[in-house]
Amino acid sequence: MNPIEEALKIKDEIIAWRRDFHMHPELKYEEERTSRIVEEHLREWGYKIKRVGTGIIGDIGEGEKTIALRADMDALPVQEENDVPYRSRIPGKMHACGHDAHTAMLLGAAKIIAEHADELGGKVRLIFQPAEEGGNGALKMIEGGALDGVDAIFGFHVWMDLPSGIIGIRDGPFLAGAGFFEAKVIGKGGHGASPHEAIDPIPIAAETVLALQTIVSRNVNPIETGVVSVTAINGGTTFNVIPEEVTLKGTFRYYKPEVGEMIKKRMAEIIEGVAKTHGARAEFSINDLVPPTINDKAMADFARKVAEKYRLRHGDVAMSMGAEDFAYYLQRVPGAFLALGIRNEGKGIVHPHHHPKFDVDEDVLHLGTAMEVALAFEFLKD
Amino acid sequence: MNPIEEALKIKDEIIAWRRDFHMHPELKYEEERTSRIVEEHLREWGYKIKRVGTGIIGDIGEGEKTIALRADMDALPVQEENDVPYRSRIPGKMHACGHDAHTAMLLGAAKIIAEHADELGGKVRLIFQPAEEGGNGALKMIEGGALDGVDAIFGFHVWMDLPSGIIGIRDGPFLAGAGFFEAKVIGKGGHGASPHEAIDPIPIAAETVLALQTIVSRNVNPIETGVVSVTAINGGTTFNVIPEEVTLKGTFRYYKPEVGEMIKKRMAEIIEGVAKTHGARAEFSINDLVPPTINDKAMADFARKVAEKYRLRHGDVAMSMGAEDFAYYLQRVPGAFLALGIRNEGKGIVHPHHHPKFDVDEDVLHLGTAMEVALAFEFLKD
Amino acid sequence: MNPIEEALKIKDEIIAWRRDFHMHPELKYEEERTSRIVEEHLREWGYKIKRVGTGIIGDIGEGEKTIALRADMDALPVQEENDVPYRSRIPGKMHACGHDAHTAMLLGAAKIIAEHADELGGKVRLIFQPAEEGGNGALKMIEGGALDGVDAIFGFHVWMDLPSGIIGIRDGPFLAGAGFFEAKVIGKGGHGASPHEAIDPIPIAAETVLALQTIVSRNVNPIETGVVSVTAINGGTTFNVIPEEVTLKGTFRYYKPEVGEMIKKRMAEIIEGVAKTHGARAEFSINDLVPPTINDKAMADFARKVAEKYRLRHGDVAMSMGAEDFAYYLQRVPGAFLALGIRNEGKGIVHPHHHPKFDVDEDVLHLGTAMEVALAFEFLKD
Amino acid sequence: MNPIEEALKIKDEIIAWRRDFHMHPELKYEEERTSRIVEEHLREWGYKIKRVGTGIIGDIGEGEKTIALRADMDALPVQEENDVPYRSRIPGKMHACGHDAHTAMLLGAAKIIAEHADELGGKVRLIFQPAEEGGNGALKMIEGGALDGVDAIFGFHVWMDLPSGIIGIRDGPFLAGAGFFEAKVIGKGGHGASPHEAIDPIPIAAETVLALQTIVSRNVNPIETGVVSVTAINGGTTFNVIPEEVTLKGTFRYYKPEVGEMIKKRMAEIIEGVAKTHGARAEFSINDLVPPTINDKAMADFARKVAEKYRLRHGDVAMSMGAEDFAYYLQRVPGAFLALGIRNEGKGIVHPHHHPKFDVDEDVLHLGTAMEVALAFEFLKD
Repeated sequence: MNPIEEALKIKDEIIAWRRDFHMHPELKYEEERTSRIVEEHLREWGYKIKRVGTGIIGDIGEGEKTIALRADMDALPVQEENDVPYRSRIPGKMHACGHDAHTAMLLGAAKIIAEHADELGGKVRLIFQPAEEGGNGALKMIEGGALDGVDAIFGFHVWMDLPSGIIGIRDGPFLAGAGFFEAKVIGKGGHGASPHEAIDPIPIAAETVLALQTIVSRNVNPIETGVVSVTAINGGTTFNVIPEEVTLKGTFRYYKPEVGEMIKKRMAEIIEGVAKTHGARAEFSINDLVPPTINDKAMADFARKVAEKYRLRHGDVAMSMGAEDFAYYLQRVPGAFLALGIRNEGKGIVHPHHHPKFDVDEDVLHLGTAMEVALAFEFLKD
Repeated sequence: MNPIEEALKIKDEIIAWRRDFHMHPELKYEEERTSRIVEEHLREWGYKIKRVGTGIIGDIGEGEKTIALRADMDALPVQEENDVPYRSRIPGKMHACGHDAHTAMLLGAAKIIAEHADELGGKVRLIFQPAEEGGNGALKMIEGGALDGVDAIFGFHVWMDLPSGIIGIRDGPFLAGAGFFEAKVIGKGGHGASPHEAIDPIPIAAETVLALQTIVSRNVNPIETGVVSVTAINGGTTFNVIPEEVTLKGTFRYYKPEVGEMIKKRMAEIIEGVAKTHGARAEFSINDLVPPTINDKAMADFARKVAEKYRLRHGDVAMSMGAEDFAYYLQRVPGAFLALGIRNEGKGIVHPHHHPKFDVDEDVLHLGTAMEVALAFEFLKD
Repeated sequence: MNPIEEALKIKDEIIAWRRDFHMHPELKYEEERTSRIVEEHLREWGYKIKRVGTGIIGDIGEGEKTIALRADMDALPVQEENDVPYRSRIPGKMHACGHDAHTAMLLGAAKIIAEHADELGGKVRLIFQPAEEGGNGALKMIEGGALDGVDAIFGFHVWMDLPSGIIGIRDGPFLAGAGFFEAKVIGKGGHGASPHEAIDPIPIAAETVLALQTIVSRNVNPIETGVVSVTAINGGTTFNVIPEEVTLKGTFRYYKPEVGEMIKKRMAEIIEGVAKTHGARAEFSINDLVPPTINDKAMADFARKVAEKYRLRHGDVAMSMGAEDFAYYLQRVPGAFLALGIRNEGKGIVHPHHHPKFDVDEDVLHLGTAMEVALAFEFLKD
Repeated sequence: MNPIEEALKIKDEIIAWRRDFHMHPELKYEEERTSRIVEEHLREWGYKIKRVGTGIIGDIGEGEKTIALRADMDALPVQEENDVPYRSRIPGKMHACGHDAHTAMLLGAAKIIAEHADELGGKVRLIFQPAEEGGNGALKMIEGGALDGVDAIFGFHVWMDLPSGIIGIRDGPFLAGAGFFEAKVIGKGGHGASPHEAIDPIPIAAETVLALQTIVSRNVNPIETGVVSVTAINGGTTFNVIPEEVTLKGTFRYYKPEVGEMIKKRMAEIIEGVAKTHGARAEFSINDLVPPTINDKAMADFARKVAEKYRLRHGDVAMSMGAEDFAYYLQRVPGAFLALGIRNEGKGIVHPHHHPKFDVDEDVLHLGTAMEVALAFEFLKD
């Protein structure tokens, strides 16, 4: 069985699935239609199904080893601006990150694997998860047992920063750890003409914003990576009333867990310390979104060898400050998160992920399918 | 004719007028009922009336010299919290700054002056103006001719920072010049994880806020007075999107015109300079509300002599960072803006101006009336 | 006895004394020659002498009341740039603040008072103090008993901001309270390429400097006066070594004691709070130089009446941010510190105090003498 | 010929050379003795010599291809604190960075290569350069023709962050680009009590320091590397004089040339923009020390294959923010800069480069020699 040939045979079917999902985008934890279609296919092809909310786990094969393959299914609250036949039919919703393609590629793999189930040297688990976009659907699936008995896991993301058809494989950190924070600097309101009777939170918040810059400029090792962005600052509405408080919101990113911990510690120290210095007080909370997505070197090497063997074009892929809840699987099970290049200037497929004109080069989706099939068979071979 | 005795005779009438106005507060430029009542009384008492919108000019007497006396009539959008028989009957509106008292005191003076019109050595002009609260009603009245032919002008404000019954008289600057400003720091939005692709306006706005502090701390002569308050800072709404822009609003105060000019110049330099330094741009606009209220020393001395003569208790009154459109009259005609103490701890009259529990000690209103009458007769005496 | 006539008689003598002192300037606590000359004259004229270091106390007269008159005698470490016959003969030292004139004027008064001692209604105490310039000589004199039994005290300063011959009299705050501060921001040094291994004190010191601006811009009541100036910031010497610490020095000024206390409290909070916020620590010390010089209103009024009576031209004098150890006398005894205008454009006498070209209009020094004599006789009259 | 066996034979000789150099350290451009010894040996072994100041170029072999091997010879102005027989005999000077070892290793390689010159498939050029430490000796050598005709270049640095004997090989950026900067913020001095008459450069410098933090925190791509360190801030000396100016000094580091250019552009914009915003002016100058040291991937791979072939233990080596003028060779000729691990806890060899107790594990120096010989023979093989 040659994965590439098998995938080529169902190339049109994969594209058709992708277009169907693209026309019917569903937001996080609302993937009813998508998961129903996935489930029907998997049942039809002989998979043993476990449903976890709007997520689907499908198992096939027998043996000691288990490899998991994962796709995410949710869309984004974006209004599509592409003028294509398969344009989103749901106003304000769009598969602007390519999860439609991920689901279609893995469905293709599911079909091929099922057709050759007797050749498998072990078990394959397919994970179709909900809510990758800010919903930590991966955690729900893990709670639902998605990783029970799994020895290795692989996932794919279509990737606008790679030329179409190239499989990007990276050792170690690939996507960033990310979190959100929110802070309130609480002073004492008053009249703008009598600042001495107030504890003006606005200069305190301003000093805080500048002090936060020093986390990256002074505290993060220059050869490591860290981001602290204050993305919202809001306090006061009128011209002559000093407000009671200013709210700050923002995000932070990192690759190394210890860098993430240091950033969180410094944020707390700065936000609380600056407020206290000026007689104000601060409320500070952190929402740890996802840890960094760190590929296992041995699994990345394995993926390279598989790609090599089947002459699938592959190469390095640059780290990205984006975040992925695939990270949670990799915290628990060795594996690798792979990229499939979809950038095609000739076809005008150049818009970044989450853009209203984002699209994927459908002609390479079967390569993702092929790689998934190949990974499964090669991993279970001996 | 003794002004105090005359005023005492109509003390209850003054209080009754004040209570009537208090129960029927009207916001700026909506002073229909109030001005109608004022007009009817003045007509009845023989004044020659000129109406300027909801403002009333009443003239009486003959002679070479003219003294103007001014009251303001508008109320505030405040919900009264006093539990008194004369509580505001209009939800959300209240005479929380004492203009009801100003109008009543001047009505009392109008009545007394009219009764003794033949003893006047010149002309008295009464100005009942609308919209002192943020409406610059004074300018409307001046455009309507209120100061034509006027040699001197006096006005009263009931004053919570003086003990009840004390007339506060101050040379030179009494109330501040004030203005509002608004600025936009316009950068370039982007993703919170990719600050290098954005021009993040939030640290730029923060630097601007701190740099603005140096106007007062470094540029204003320490023995002069200046205030620059950023009272609103707003940019961004979500956790991971760097916003396009941040809006700053605020107020500035000063007593000396040259200090006001310097503050405005430095604000523009800082807001534009900091933005430009970081590749952003700024929009900046100023709304010059009112100039400082600066009493003419000779007129203040005249008022002191008048108070002395009639044994009206008087004293100094501290400068206030508040602002008054009486300033516009004083820019054109010599005069003085006087304070009438109304603070009375025994009666619980202690809440600051604009407070929902603000009230005035009615038992001293006739003293304001008396002083107004005395000023008129003394000024016109020779 | 008419003080002005008496003073006119010895005008040339006063000028001669002044020139002698001017040619022989002595720095703080080194006023050997000056105090010797003063002492000899006072003894000759019948004063009872008490020496306090290089200071002289001279008493004359009998009676219940005692008035003190004070002059300061020390010069400055300034190289004179005037080309005048009485130019300083001591390189690097100069009477650039007019203390030579103060001493000469009070010597003149001493002579006149002694000649009319039998007409005095009480005691006169003359205080010739050392070390007004940063030496707090006033405190030494007070410790030495200079104020024992004193009912009122007056002092004079020649004043470049008043036209020549005008006596400036001010109620309440006249000169500022002043202090120095020093702070060390102590981080952890390191290599400039490895900021994460250091606690870089330079951004911490920078944040501290900006935060200190908010004391004046936000914490001082706008109608009060406060100054906080960081006048030195020093840390690091080379291009690639992050220093261990940064030193800040500076001064603060105020008129109201409570403003001074607030400034000191806020400085400590800010300097320590910002350092702590960033894992550094701060050392902070304050040197309270002098309190504000606050004239007693009754004594200022008395001075006005005296000036009025003898037709000495007088007027208001603006507050100054300068500081004077005369403040210490006024903390203990009612009195007033007066200014004698010496600005004379026609004579080119325009350079500010402490300037190498500072000079005084000698033709009005006898007016200072006259006022001192008049104050003494009038105060002791009944 | 086996490089390792050959190197082992002269291991003691290499150590002896190193100790001799260690005992006689010479600062940059003063490497008279060292270069004389190197020259004598090379001449003796048959090299064709070209002298470039205190640098030596030695050529041997015939053929189309030329490989260059480079060592640096200069010592540091550090007082040695090691108590070893070969301790520096020159007070205040020490080979505290291991250049003694570099020179000895390359001398060893020179001897072996000369002995096997007839087996060489091309030319070998040895570059013994002066002044790596802040002297850009590499540029002098290049100007002197060191790279003429050279096809590839390799160099070694002993490396405290690698275990003894490990050869560290890295693709792409290895050491940082570095530069120094100096800035003056020039305001207008004045008295600390009269800030309004000055243009106080201290808050301006403080704002500048904080604004400079945003280069790294906002302008550098988070997955790239940049450092901007202000390492000195100096202005003012006394407590009450606002100084005329504040001087800033510092360093910047980067790996990608475009990041370096961006940093320099932003520094200039910030330093000049902030000063201008506040009515001050800035002087700013940059000293570009060295570009980043970027290994050619093909050459690094070649080095790995060579190490593999001769079973020399090797591995990855982390990027360092240190800087090296080897960067200049790599800007012109493909090559790689390699690290030789020298850390040996058992021997107490753990102190960082430039430390007074820095030492090298001499027992592995012959491995560096062996690798140099192997690189030469393998590169020229075909």
